[in-house]
Amino acid sequence: MSGSLPQRDRLLDAALAAADVAGCIVRPFFRVGVAADDKADQSPVTIADRSAERAIRAVLGERLPEHGIMGEEFGLERAGASYRWVIDPVDGTRAFLTGRPTFGTLIALLHDGVPVLGVIDQPITGERWIGIRGERTRYVSSFPGRAGTRACPALDRAELSCTSPEILEGAYRARWDRLSRAVKRTSWGGDCYAYGLLALGQVDVIAECTMKPWDWAALVPVIEGAGGSVTDWAGRPLRLDGDGTVLALGNPALLSPVRDLLAD
Amino acid sequence: MSGSLPQRDRLLDAALAAADVAGCIVRPFFRVGVAADDKADQSPVTIADRSAERAIRAVLGERLPEHGIMGEEFGLERAGASYRWVIDPVDGTRAFLTGRPTFGTLIALLHDGVPVLGVIDQPITGERWIGIRGERTRYVSSFPGRAGTRACPALDRAELSCTSPEILEGAYRARWDRLSRAVKRTSWGGDCYAYGLLALGQVDVIAECTMKPWDWAALVPVIEGAGGSVTDWAGRPLRLDGDGTVLALGNPALLSPVRDLLAD
Repeated sequence: MSGSLPQRDRLLDAALAAADVAGCIVRPFFRVGVAADDKADQSPVTIADRSAERAIRAVLGERLPEHGIMGEEFGLERAGASYRWVIDPVDGTRAFLTGRPTFGTLIALLHDGVPVLGVIDQPITGERWIGIRGERTRYVSSFPGRAGTRACPALDRAELSCTSPEILEGAYRARWDRLSRAVKRTSWGGDCYAYGLLALGQVDVIAECTMKPWDWAALVPVIEGAGGSVTDWAGRPLRLDGDGTVLALGNPALLSPVRDLLAD
Repeated sequence: MSGSLPQRDRLLDAALAAADVAGCIVRPFFRVGVAADDKADQSPVTIADRSAERAIRAVLGERLPEHGIMGEEFGLERAGASYRWVIDPVDGTRAFLTGRPTFGTLIALLHDGVPVLGVIDQPITGERWIGIRGERTRYVSSFPGRAGTRACPALDRAELSCTSPEILEGAYRARWDRLSRAVKRTSWGGDCYAYGLLALGQVDVIAECTMKPWDWAALVPVIEGAGGSVTDWAGRPLRLDGDGTVLALGNPALLSPVRDLLAD
C-alpha cells in the first residue's frame, strides 16, 4: 500500500455524505413493492437506483466539481479527470427487490484508474465498511464483527461465496466449478455484502465474473485494508477495461493455487 | 384455518421465551470464528446450535413438561405426546458460519402432526415472524416490512428463491429447473429468511427439497397466516414422514401450474 491519500479527510467526508444521502433515499423504497424495469442487459433497475444515483452525483459534484463521476445508471461525467468516483447506488438490485438487506450502496474513488477509497454501505442493517489506501479498514455497525480477513491456511478449509450461479456464464462456469470442488463449502447470495463478510474474516474466497467497475471499485480498498487481495481471475490488478472477472481472497497467499484452478 | 388454539397465550409465551433464550445464546457466537463439525450428512453443526437447542429444550420442558420435543441436534423426547415442539436452533448453519444475518431460530408446535404455531426469529437483525393457526401473522422488527403475502398474478411475474443449488439433488434438479425457467427471476440464499420474505410479500415462490421437519414446521403457520400456502411439491400438506419437498406460495392460486411444473 502506498502513502496517505492527499486531502484524505475532505474526500472521506464527501464519500460518507454521499452514502448517507443514498441511504436516506433508498430506505423508503425497501419492501414497499417498487416496480422494476429491465435494462438492455436484462438486469433490473428501480426508482431507488435512479434517485439515489442522482443524489450521490449531486453531493459529489457540489463538493468536488473537478472530479469525474461514473455510475451504473447515468454514465460518465468529466472523463478526463485524474480522480474519478465510481458508484453503484444499489448493488444487488435483485436482493433489494426481494427484501433482502444484503444489497448495498458502493462508493469508490479512483486515482488514475486505481481505487484509493471505497465505502460499502448497507442502508437497512446500518453496516458500513470504509477502506482507504494505506489504512486499516474500518467496520462501523451495531452488528458483531471486526474488520480483518482470516488467514485461511489451505484451500480445502476455505469458505467460497458467489452471488448466483446465473452470473457464471459460458466457459467461466467450468473454471469456477474446479474452484468450488477444491474448497470446504460454497454459499450463495450476497452481492457486495459477501465481500464485506470477507473483509470481516467470515468468507475466504469470492470468484465472480461479468462484474462492472461500479461492482468492484469500492471493494478493493475495503478488502486490501483488511488484509486481503482483489484481482482478476488471473491475479492481475483490476482495471476499468478489464475482463470483468473478480477474485477476492482473505489470505493473499492462496492466490497461486486459486489462479491455477481458475485458469482458462 | 381452524378456530383458536387452546391455551394460546401460554403456548405463545413459551415459544417466545424459547426464541429469546436461543438468541441470547447464539449472538455471542456470531462472527467470532466458532469451529464447525461435520455431521453424518455432511451438514455443519457448531457449539451455537447445540447450546441453543439445549436451552430451548430446557425452557419448553420446564413450562410444558407433558409436550414432546423434536430437534435437529438431540432427537425426539416424549414421542407419544399429541403436542410436539419441533425446533431448529440455527436454521442455516452455513449462513451463520459465514457471518450472514439470514440464519434463524425456528420454533414450531404441532398438534397431532399439524403445525399450529410457528416462530421465525433472526437474532442479529431482531426480526421475528409469529404465526398462529387461525390468526393473521405478525412481523415484529425495526426493519421495514409488513406481514402479508403478495397476490402475484402469474408465474412469469414471480420471484423464485432457493437457498442453494446444492440442495437440488438428483432428479429434483430437472423438475426445479422447469419451474425456474417459468418464473420472472430467481434469487439465492436465505434458508428460513427467504420464507419470512415470502410472508412479507417480497418473494412469491420457494421450492426446496431434502427438508427436515425442523426446517419447515415453523414456516407453515407463519406463511398460512400471511395468506400463502405451504405444501410438498405435489400440493399435499407437509407431514413428519413426508418426502422432504417443500413448496411455499405467496398466492395459493398458483399451486396448480407450479405443481404441474414440479411433477415427477
